[in-house]
Amino acid sequence: MIPRDTLHSQVLYDRMLDYPLREGKGLRPALCVATCRALGGSLEAVLPTAAVLELYHNAFLIHDDVEDGSEQRRGKSTLHRLYGEPIAINVGDAMLALTLQPLLDNMKLIGMGPSLHVMQQVSDMARISSEGQAIELEWIRQGSWDMTDDDYVDMVAKKTARYTFVTPMATGAIVAGGHDVGISRIETLGHHLGVAFQIQDDVLNVTGDEAVYGKEICGDLWEGKRTLLLLHALRSCSAEQRRRALEILERPRQGKGLKNTEDVEFLRELIVRARSAEYAGSVAHEHAAAAAELFRGLSADLRPSVHTELLEKLVDYVVERVR
Amino acid sequence: MIPRDTLHSQVLYDRMLDYPLREGKGLRPALCVATCRALGGSLEAVLPTAAVLELYHNAFLIHDDVEDGSEQRRGKSTLHRLYGEPIAINVGDAMLALTLQPLLDNMKLIGMGPSLHVMQQVSDMARISSEGQAIELEWIRQGSWDMTDDDYVDMVAKKTARYTFVTPMATGAIVAGGHDVGISRIETLGHHLGVAFQIQDDVLNVTGDEAVYGKEICGDLWEGKRTLLLLHALRSCSAEQRRRALEILERPRQGKGLKNTEDVEFLRELIVRARSAEYAGSVAHEHAAAAAELFRGLSADLRPSVHTELLEKLVDYVVERVR
Repeated sequence: MIPRDTLHSQVLYDRMLDYPLREGKGLRPALCVATCRALGGSLEAVLPTAAVLELYHNAFLIHDDVEDGSEQRRGKSTLHRLYGEPIAINVGDAMLALTLQPLLDNMKLIGMGPSLHVMQQVSDMARISSEGQAIELEWIRQGSWDMTDDDYVDMVAKKTARYTFVTPMATGAIVAGGHDVGISRIETLGHHLGVAFQIQDDVLNVTGDEAVYGKEICGDLWEGKRTLLLLHALRSCSAEQRRRALEILERPRQGKGLKNTEDVEFLRELIVRARSAEYAGSVAHEHAAAAAELFRGLSADLRPSVHTELLEKLVDYVVERVR
Repeated sequence: MIPRDTLHSQVLYDRMLDYPLREGKGLRPALCVATCRALGGSLEAVLPTAAVLELYHNAFLIHDDVEDGSEQRRGKSTLHRLYGEPIAINVGDAMLALTLQPLLDNMKLIGMGPSLHVMQQVSDMARISSEGQAIELEWIRQGSWDMTDDDYVDMVAKKTARYTFVTPMATGAIVAGGHDVGISRIETLGHHLGVAFQIQDDVLNVTGDEAVYGKEICGDLWEGKRTLLLLHALRSCSAEQRRRALEILERPRQGKGLKNTEDVEFLRELIVRARSAEYAGSVAHEHAAAAAELFRGLSADLRPSVHTELLEKLVDYVVERVR
């Protein structure tokens, strides 16, 4: 008899619940449920799919936190700071392992065709997200700072937009019984929304009000994160300024030869002088405008409801945010 | 248009191929293919499933190597030593992401029912393997050394036997068109084979000839790995010996307060005096005998072929090894 005792695994399941039980927006399952319901699907039908997206998101967060050496997540210590890196990596793997069962259970719940279509979306999402993460990690490893705007948008589309907007909205539409053309339009909508959202997030990180923005202002500069506005500033400044900026950016936040406030202020001033926030904002605005246009094209299919209102507000929010 | 450019991801795909292209036994795909073909299935039908198992195995190896801080894998530096932990974790995640597409492609290749059955097996495998890994990591974290033999067998069954023997053989049988009762028997066979194989591996690590065994002798003692023979020795020695043994085992191999050759020799002598290798061998033998009995029961279903011979030799090998 094969032992199936899960008593010894209780501690693993408790740790999988740690991040999901912390205060979070639940953006991905919310988008998935809202899209499904706005298109006439039921909550019951979409719930396992929404849960799979949240499992992926939290597994990615755990592994990203290890990869970035992050100390805090949603106001508490990161999982690897609490239990060590080996356990944190394994908890992420276990959450990825749990994504398969709801996708299989979908067969009975929503039928064969939609289930396979959802699985295909999740397969693409997992692959593309890891490709996006690989691109960013490779820039960090190589100390690259000469990417084009297209390189950056490609990375963000893969690393963030895909699993935060494209797949949640597309799978919600599939569960609601959407046709292929409609789903393809929703994918493009999610792509533009996601890219606009991330670029604007990068802009607010430098220009925003910390109390409103909710994250540490200029945290990206402290971390040496590649963003559209920093790439623009580095292209726009003098050779001497660029040399000093790269020297600062390559220094770690912790460890030897730390960055200091003066260094970060130097970077911030490069961005201000080059009007890089305005430039990045204009790129974000193009994507937001494309998203708004696509959303208007969908409106005939969306039933008047709180779910449609949520989607409208989200699109408005992204567009307003970048104005 | 959503960018699907994979140019930037080439380096990721190159790194995914690193471990698979190193010299390895390919035990899991070999078992899967042999079981399928011995039961009358075709190579073409089973290949994507066998590839999924090898992808999982290599993803687990990469993550395990990070978790264990291992320096060498198959005679070369581990992936995280070559490219850093962030990239290694991501390469493992990317390999896990790639497992979904062949499982979806199975639908056309082997039909709906068998495909879903294979997916269920892979879902169980991923979940149970991460549970097994969690059990062992928790013992290490808590410094536990008072587990029972059943605890150890449960851990090995989940962490190793499931994805090395149970799932490869069961999925091979499913692709060949096996019925549920037969597949359940093959799962139990794989369980006993896997447990016997791992216990005997632990025994050979302490008693074997390095040239024949192929791994560093007593490496497990240097690493402080929980094994059936070490647990037996710790139960059988005096309180004073146990105190000293635990003090040695909890010291890291690298870092402060290193183990030395005298310490490892002390542990080895505890094992010799308690005849712990003989004890562990007898437990392995029970599992090997159960496996041999189950294999005889299957023989009527197996077609005479090189594939059936491979399975026979493997069962014989595990049984002989523990005699």
